[in-house]
Amino acid sequence: MINYNEAIEIIKSEISKIKLHSEEVDIFESYNRILAEDVIADVDLPPFNNSAVDGYAIKFSDKTQWEIIGEISAGNFNSFNITEEVAVLITTGSKIPVGADTIIPVEDVDVESNILKLKENAFIKKGMNIRTQGNDLRKNEIAIKQFTKIDSKSIAVLASCGKEKVKVYSKLKCALFATGDELIPINEKPSEDKFRVSNIYSLYAAMKEMNHTVINLGFTKDDKEMIRRKVEAAFEMNIDMLITTGGVSVGKYDFLKEIFEEQGVKEKFWKVNIKPGKPIYFGVYEKDERRILVFGLPGNPVSSLVNFYVFIKPSIEFLFKQNRIDKLTATLQNDLKKKDGKRHFSRGILYQENDELKVTSEFSQSSGNLVEMSRANCLIEIEDDRLNPKKGERVKCILI
Amino acid sequence: MINYNEAIEIIKSEISKIKLHSEEVDIFESYNRILAEDVIADVDLPPFNNSAVDGYAIKFSDKTQWEIIGEISAGNFNSFNITEEVAVLITTGSKIPVGADTIIPVEDVDVESNILKLKENAFIKKGMNIRTQGNDLRKNEIAIKQFTKIDSKSIAVLASCGKEKVKVYSKLKCALFATGDELIPINEKPSEDKFRVSNIYSLYAAMKEMNHTVINLGFTKDDKEMIRRKVEAAFEMNIDMLITTGGVSVGKYDFLKEIFEEQGVKEKFWKVNIKPGKPIYFGVYEKDERRILVFGLPGNPVSSLVNFYVFIKPSIEFLFKQNRIDKLTATLQNDLKKKDGKRHFSRGILYQENDELKVTSEFSQSSGNLVEMSRANCLIEIEDDRLNPKKGERVKCILI
Repeated sequence: MINYNEAIEIIKSEISKIKLHSEEVDIFESYNRILAEDVIADVDLPPFNNSAVDGYAIKFSDKTQWEIIGEISAGNFNSFNITEEVAVLITTGSKIPVGADTIIPVEDVDVESNILKLKENAFIKKGMNIRTQGNDLRKNEIAIKQFTKIDSKSIAVLASCGKEKVKVYSKLKCALFATGDELIPINEKPSEDKFRVSNIYSLYAAMKEMNHTVINLGFTKDDKEMIRRKVEAAFEMNIDMLITTGGVSVGKYDFLKEIFEEQGVKEKFWKVNIKPGKPIYFGVYEKDERRILVFGLPGNPVSSLVNFYVFIKPSIEFLFKQNRIDKLTATLQNDLKKKDGKRHFSRGILYQENDELKVTSEFSQSSGNLVEMSRANCLIEIEDDRLNPKKGERVKCILI
Repeated sequence: MINYNEAIEIIKSEISKIKLHSEEVDIFESYNRILAEDVIADVDLPPFNNSAVDGYAIKFSDKTQWEIIGEISAGNFNSFNITEEVAVLITTGSKIPVGADTIIPVEDVDVESNILKLKENAFIKKGMNIRTQGNDLRKNEIAIKQFTKIDSKSIAVLASCGKEKVKVYSKLKCALFATGDELIPINEKPSEDKFRVSNIYSLYAAMKEMNHTVINLGFTKDDKEMIRRKVEAAFEMNIDMLITTGGVSVGKYDFLKEIFEEQGVKEKFWKVNIKPGKPIYFGVYEKDERRILVFGLPGNPVSSLVNFYVFIKPSIEFLFKQNRIDKLTATLQNDLKKKDGKRHFSRGILYQENDELKVTSEFSQSSGNLVEMSRANCLIEIEDDRLNPKKGERVKCILI
């Protein structure tokens, strides 16, 4: 059995072989997509010297009084020629007239008819309150880097660079199905020894959260022939990833590993020294042009979702070079039990109190407890060789 | 001029009067929506006693050897009657047979034909490895609370509670337009004193990020009649909010405030003692059944987006009772200049290093610098009466 670090390195090495495709989308559709090219400024930003405040444009000297000769508002330039004796009222964002080199804010002056006077205690400095052309970015420089996830801030820069159409990476395509004789549809009521299927919902939402495409193939009983047909159907699709749940443990109905092998999937690992989620299987299917990463997750809903957050999500973020703040160090508020050499991912609630990040984990940590997991907002990662972390110790928390 | 805290309280008080509507959506569509009811468990979770591991079900006694009489796998219950002498192979998630009260993990036993023997150093305890019925949640208890934002974890609980259809709050509807003689469409190249419009893109994305509906009304010149028509058109719509940019300052083309008044909008405040974003206007339009919150943001793209993150976003989260971790305290890595009594929201980059949250802010902080803002991941909030925070001091960072 390999350890967590080995497993994540294997997945990263395989996922980085995915050939990324790109597509052009309308700028309004680019939100939350990942930029597939460096976007270059086609003009200086700002494109011209302009006023940072509502104020008066002057030519700096030792004078403290000027004649107001006119007004310039944003988008309504007037070609005044500013000498030391005159001033022009100018609003924020307006182009600076010829001769002017300083803007005095409206708060710092008194105006009497067309005479402008500097207030007693006001201080002026040559060049103040001018946003100079290209100060934010020069023409032909990179405005937004490839692999930027487009958000409310970067989309404004795309607009400023005239990008009506934006080249973004195509979403990954992932097929998904669950297996298990214990599963029933959610519109039925559990009787005897059955559970309502929940994995396909949680994994669907987890992939959607990352803004990728999920093809939901539903669930199937532990019937070898039916599972084989689902796997074959998935491998005919144009997908980057297949995620299954169940059927990778040691029971006599655990067919998935066997079927993957039959189909020519190359096993990269099976079982990782972690808790929960140990039985995870990872392999790669290659045929003709197709190359599909195969994740066989355990059937347990808590385990499979933890697997997603500690293996699949970080690998996809690695592929797209995303560096989010998704691991925070916090102070543990209660003792945790850990006696083995596995890496644990315990459910926790991270919060900030008195300037300090804290994490509490008053959960049973049973991998059967979905409701409990739904109340957590992080996984507390306890490294392989660390035992029984105590209240007050610092631990790493993975936001989920 | 009011201060930040006063302004945010006024907005919260007005936004909380919005009458929230709800709608039923398919569970797959419920992701990222906000639950409009408490979801009650219609069964115990888990619905029956089941095994937490792959192992052997026994009736606890001082025996260390048993006869294996069969196998139970998940979803394939067999009604064995377990006495002290016998054991049944049982897989994770399988229902516990009558008489059994303890599960020994497969790792702790040796099997020779049909004889099961406890390993020398293995330790067993009555009741171990059984997930008891209702341990996660009892029938008729609240599984997921109203106002939960549905994510990959809670959606699994919805599935387990049989919620094919989920009652969620309807998205807020927000109309948006920009004003300014300086604005040109993004497919034109800036000449003379024009800027490409960027506000409608950033504010559109910011509302989308919150998963609400945005009706983009584009932009218009500083023409009183044209702006009036846009405002009138917006007020005819079934919207909760109107966001405009530009036209709320003191220039002779700043018509918006005037038009809002004409239309009967009740001004709640105009100008807040903050930087950037001081000229923000907030009012409420009421007519017949309609009640529309009106946010007149400044035209400057950095200012308007900062306004969104410090006024509009926290108010919407307040309305929907969301408690995300969106403010983190970090150690400032460089001195910041602040000489006035305004509340500043400076752009910063928050990161974690050696277990410590740090924030750097080597930016010009010019509100003209959009590219700079796009590289920030937080706003450093410097309270009204705090002056020139120094390197090493702790500051609050708002994630953006």
